[in-house]
Amino acid sequence: MKRKVYLKKTDWKDALKMLHNEFSSIFPLESEIVPVKDSLHRIIVKDTTARLSSPHYDASAMDGIVVKAEATFAASASNPKRFSIGKDVELVDTGDPIDEGFDAVIKIEDVTVLDEKTVEVKGSVPPGKDVRFTGEDFRAGDIIISRNHRIRPIDIGAMLSCGVLDVEVRKKPRVCIIPTGSEIVEPKEKLEIGEIIDCNSYIAGGMIAEWGGVPDRNPIVRNDKKEIEVAIKKAVSENEIVIVIAGSSAGLEDYTATIVKKMGKMIVHGVDLMPGKPVILAKVEDKPFVGLPGYPLSAFVILDIYVKELIAMALGIAPQMRKKIKAILEEDIVSKLGMDEIVRMKLSNRDGKLLASSLKRGAGILSSLVQADGLLHNPKDEEGVNGGSEVEIELLKGVKTDS
Amino acid sequence: MKRKVYLKKTDWKDALKMLHNEFSSIFPLESEIVPVKDSLHRIIVKDTTARLSSPHYDASAMDGIVVKAEATFAASASNPKRFSIGKDVELVDTGDPIDEGFDAVIKIEDVTVLDEKTVEVKGSVPPGKDVRFTGEDFRAGDIIISRNHRIRPIDIGAMLSCGVLDVEVRKKPRVCIIPTGSEIVEPKEKLEIGEIIDCNSYIAGGMIAEWGGVPDRNPIVRNDKKEIEVAIKKAVSENEIVIVIAGSSAGLEDYTATIVKKMGKMIVHGVDLMPGKPVILAKVEDKPFVGLPGYPLSAFVILDIYVKELIAMALGIAPQMRKKIKAILEEDIVSKLGMDEIVRMKLSNRDGKLLASSLKRGAGILSSLVQADGLLHNPKDEEGVNGGSEVEIELLKGVKTDS
Repeated sequence: MKRKVYLKKTDWKDALKMLHNEFSSIFPLESEIVPVKDSLHRIIVKDTTARLSSPHYDASAMDGIVVKAEATFAASASNPKRFSIGKDVELVDTGDPIDEGFDAVIKIEDVTVLDEKTVEVKGSVPPGKDVRFTGEDFRAGDIIISRNHRIRPIDIGAMLSCGVLDVEVRKKPRVCIIPTGSEIVEPKEKLEIGEIIDCNSYIAGGMIAEWGGVPDRNPIVRNDKKEIEVAIKKAVSENEIVIVIAGSSAGLEDYTATIVKKMGKMIVHGVDLMPGKPVILAKVEDKPFVGLPGYPLSAFVILDIYVKELIAMALGIAPQMRKKIKAILEEDIVSKLGMDEIVRMKLSNRDGKLLASSLKRGAGILSSLVQADGLLHNPKDEEGVNGGSEVEIELLKGVKTDS
Repeated sequence: MKRKVYLKKTDWKDALKMLHNEFSSIFPLESEIVPVKDSLHRIIVKDTTARLSSPHYDASAMDGIVVKAEATFAASASNPKRFSIGKDVELVDTGDPIDEGFDAVIKIEDVTVLDEKTVEVKGSVPPGKDVRFTGEDFRAGDIIISRNHRIRPIDIGAMLSCGVLDVEVRKKPRVCIIPTGSEIVEPKEKLEIGEIIDCNSYIAGGMIAEWGGVPDRNPIVRNDKKEIEVAIKKAVSENEIVIVIAGSSAGLEDYTATIVKKMGKMIVHGVDLMPGKPVILAKVEDKPFVGLPGYPLSAFVILDIYVKELIAMALGIAPQMRKKIKAILEEDIVSKLGMDEIVRMKLSNRDGKLLASSLKRGAGILSSLVQADGLLHNPKDEEGVNGGSEVEIELLKGVKTDS
């Protein structure tokens, strides 16, 4: 009976650097061409230029009449000028082309229509007035959107308005999630003693989708070395990132580390993070491999730090960071020296001050993460934080503040 | 030749209240049941309670041995105690049930395995140590997620871990977008003079999807009263919200207002917003109807205020608001008295200060919206803002600040 007693802990920030060193040669991923209409939230790969000018002809900016500006110069309230429609002026709607010989628009509110053939004007307009000139918005060849940008609805509008119908975007990383464990079962309504519902793979799937990856959940694999090995081999060949859930601590039946050492290269086994300590970061057939701890909170923290980073690297962007807010700690928080601890916090407003207090801290307690307004990061070189101190909270929810 | 000269302008905030008065009887929409696995970002309708406790049995919280705590009380470094595996103690992995007769777990790091049958322990544990008791995370019947909440990945995990497989969520509002105008054409790479690419319907589609609605784009309808009427009739019967693009100003060929007055009830025609002024807010067959101005910036502003609000009402939530940041205005901004103006702003950092300067302001200029870091709202009772003032900017992009 072999029991590995615990793993050496890597500084969790160093572990991020090690991922960058190991995978900067394979990430970001290659690109693909997609229709602009379907490109919402994709990452654009190249500076994208206008194919057409917008507008692509000189156009009226208003509903009104198009005139030769010169002809209006003498017009005033006391000296109105009359024009013949179809000869001196033309009626135009917004967007209509400015015909040759005209150079300004008078908006309809400033025009008196006397009859079907005649209008009267009580003021002058300078040349160019209310004309949208060719290329006023974009000129053909202008950069519309710069590279490494996440495409927004208005970006789609800008590209389409310039005749750009297809766009080169970063491929989305496919992330395989393999839940393991003979005690782990698919979500169901009745359980036997000893059965544990796999919720981690669904949490992972949602987070991966939010970060721009494509989650691909493998069915649960029981704790069998051979079966896990087969699943990993298949996953690595079909995906850009592979996650195995549980089997990353030092337990009796935890095979992941052994398999990873056999199939690839262990980069990090264990970090100074709580929850999240027993993570595996590895390389299997040149692909990043993450061994996720089985406790939901540990899994959440590791996903949030390392899987988010890997997806961002694959997309060639910076990882999305949460909004931070300052709050006053309501009571002392005691933490273990030598471990960076992530504490779930509840926020409240009192007398115009934002107060933070900690929630239940076990790695198995998902309820306090669901209830938390934010996360407090307590660094490893401090044994805790004193009540009354100002702390920085990463927001998990929108918070009603007085400001 | 009839030309309607302009519409009376409603205060844009009053217009929001009028929408609430008019549609609070039909919104929020009814609910539907979806699998929890597929419920990401949906709005939960009822407080959702745990079907099973989590954990649903007393379980080991660690890899180690399960013991009767009492038996360890005398153990110490100088007086280690030996236990027989399978009799006095049992080896357990995290999550294993605690068998009858045992009440505590000693983690494997604190256990010396002497041989296949014997372990040695050099310290005592209290009853309950490292045991996860039934319902420690959630008890059956506990509220897991409160209503009117947007489901996050961790919420999915929490529901599944408590045996909740289906969840009641708000139906997504279907929003039909009807682009109109004989000069409007589908996106293409070559244009004739007078043709204008429809980009607004795609901008609208992306924004609607981001807010949780389901956009349904109608093909372009040419400027024909009858054809527009038919399209609106169909859209209203199949969707919860209908948007007609363009035809909402006072131009020569703008039929929307006329049609709406015939088919339904005009609520607002024109607001004191720039861009965005010539909006139509109406009720057609009890459904909200929005006539969107044709200029991209006007369309964007109206979508961002009124369509966002209608979708939030349909979902029974508060509309998503942008993050705001304070900045110092670099130069004077002159604005029209009596109109609330929304100005596109560029932010920059200089000497540790965040500075804001305005970009091109035409309603037809999409480029400056694409480039903008944020929006400044200049209220109608002020003719502008002086350079050097502190202003509040609604962020359109993440901004690198020093703080």
